[in-house]
Amino acid sequence: MIDGRLARGERSRTAALDAAVVLATESGLEGLSFNQLAERLGVSKSGLFAHWRTKEELQLAAVDHAEARFTERVVRPALHRPRGVRRLWALHEHRLADISSGDLPGGCFFGLAQFEFVARPGPVQARLAAALERWHALLERIITEAVELGELDPGTDPQQLSFELNAHGTAAVYESRLRPASNVYEHARAAALDRLRGLSPQPHLLEA
Amino acid sequence: MIDGRLARGERSRTAALDAAVVLATESGLEGLSFNQLAERLGVSKSGLFAHWRTKEELQLAAVDHAEARFTERVVRPALHRPRGVRRLWALHEHRLADISSGDLPGGCFFGLAQFEFVARPGPVQARLAAALERWHALLERIITEAVELGELDPGTDPQQLSFELNAHGTAAVYESRLRPASNVYEHARAAALDRLRGLSPQPHLLEA
Repeated sequence: MIDGRLARGERSRTAALDAAVVLATESGLEGLSFNQLAERLGVSKSGLFAHWRTKEELQLAAVDHAEARFTERVVRPALHRPRGVRRLWALHEHRLADISSGDLPGGCFFGLAQFEFVARPGPVQARLAAALERWHALLERIITEAVELGELDPGTDPQQLSFELNAHGTAAVYESRLRPASNVYEHARAAALDRLRGLSPQPHLLEA
Repeated sequence: MIDGRLARGERSRTAALDAAVVLATESGLEGLSFNQLAERLGVSKSGLFAHWRTKEELQLAAVDHAEARFTERVVRPALHRPRGVRRLWALHEHRLADISSGDLPGGCFFGLAQFEFVARPGPVQARLAAALERWHALLERIITEAVELGELDPGTDPQQLSFELNAHGTAAVYESRLRPASNVYEHARAAALDRLRGLSPQPHLLEA
């Protein structure tokens, strides 16, 4: 009985956070409210208050949930590729696939929320900044591995390359929505592919 | 007398739009309100209603004002440089200088507003998308001139390079605020400089 209630509670929490991540990419993470979330889910606000007492708690939980989603959708599939430049390329490709999938109306929770919180200091901004640090740390680690394997030029600067790859993915988030007639995803792919091939003594590893 | 009133009206309109652009980079273009703007300016709401009747009219005027500001701060100084790759590089440098100047709390009106309106169709989104098109058209024209002058490789794809340069500038907007300890501006400069030098038969034109 108690186990059943716990499982139901966990399912309702997960469903609420799934909806919160979707809503945040529609009307903003700051715009996220218990009212809006309850309406979307067709539940009562009091049910939501059982999980989070304040809007900020809900926002922080949404950030964590979006990061777990990103790990599942983007990072984990890329980690199935061999270490080195192929894993790095796969990370970029899976990110673009996620943005273009339409699963999230705004394309990318983090691209949108991190811009939204640029000038809003506080716990939510700090949580978003920490997620961005972890993303760059992952990119930099995979770049360093590729250098060690001899798949990227030994002079490659991991921080520099990580900045560039992230920039191409981030630009694809907003340009794909505001310039639907242009070849945004192709540009975001070609930008990374050309850059990695130029830095790789083994460019044949990177099939387009 | 009438001329004096018109001039005062124009000054108050300009002052209100200056403040609106600043506020939009703090709390969002959607968050912009007559209340907030009147409070910031220390004027009555009715004074503002003399200029704009609805929030949407105010938002559209803010987009136009931000574009005029961007032209003045970023585009015009770059156009003083010789046509070709130096003008292209100057555009990127002036954009980064504007973002890092601190004049706008969020660094860049368009970077923030365009992300904010990714999933909000309507007249404001359309106006922001049109401004993005004009920005890319300018970049592409300057790239094409540089190719014609023999300062960029004849195989250069103007749309592709425009996407990349804009991506590096846009990423600098949010990363400079969320990763203050990292060398974001240096990365954004180096990304463009390396790319342009790699495409230029006359890399000496690009002094770091």
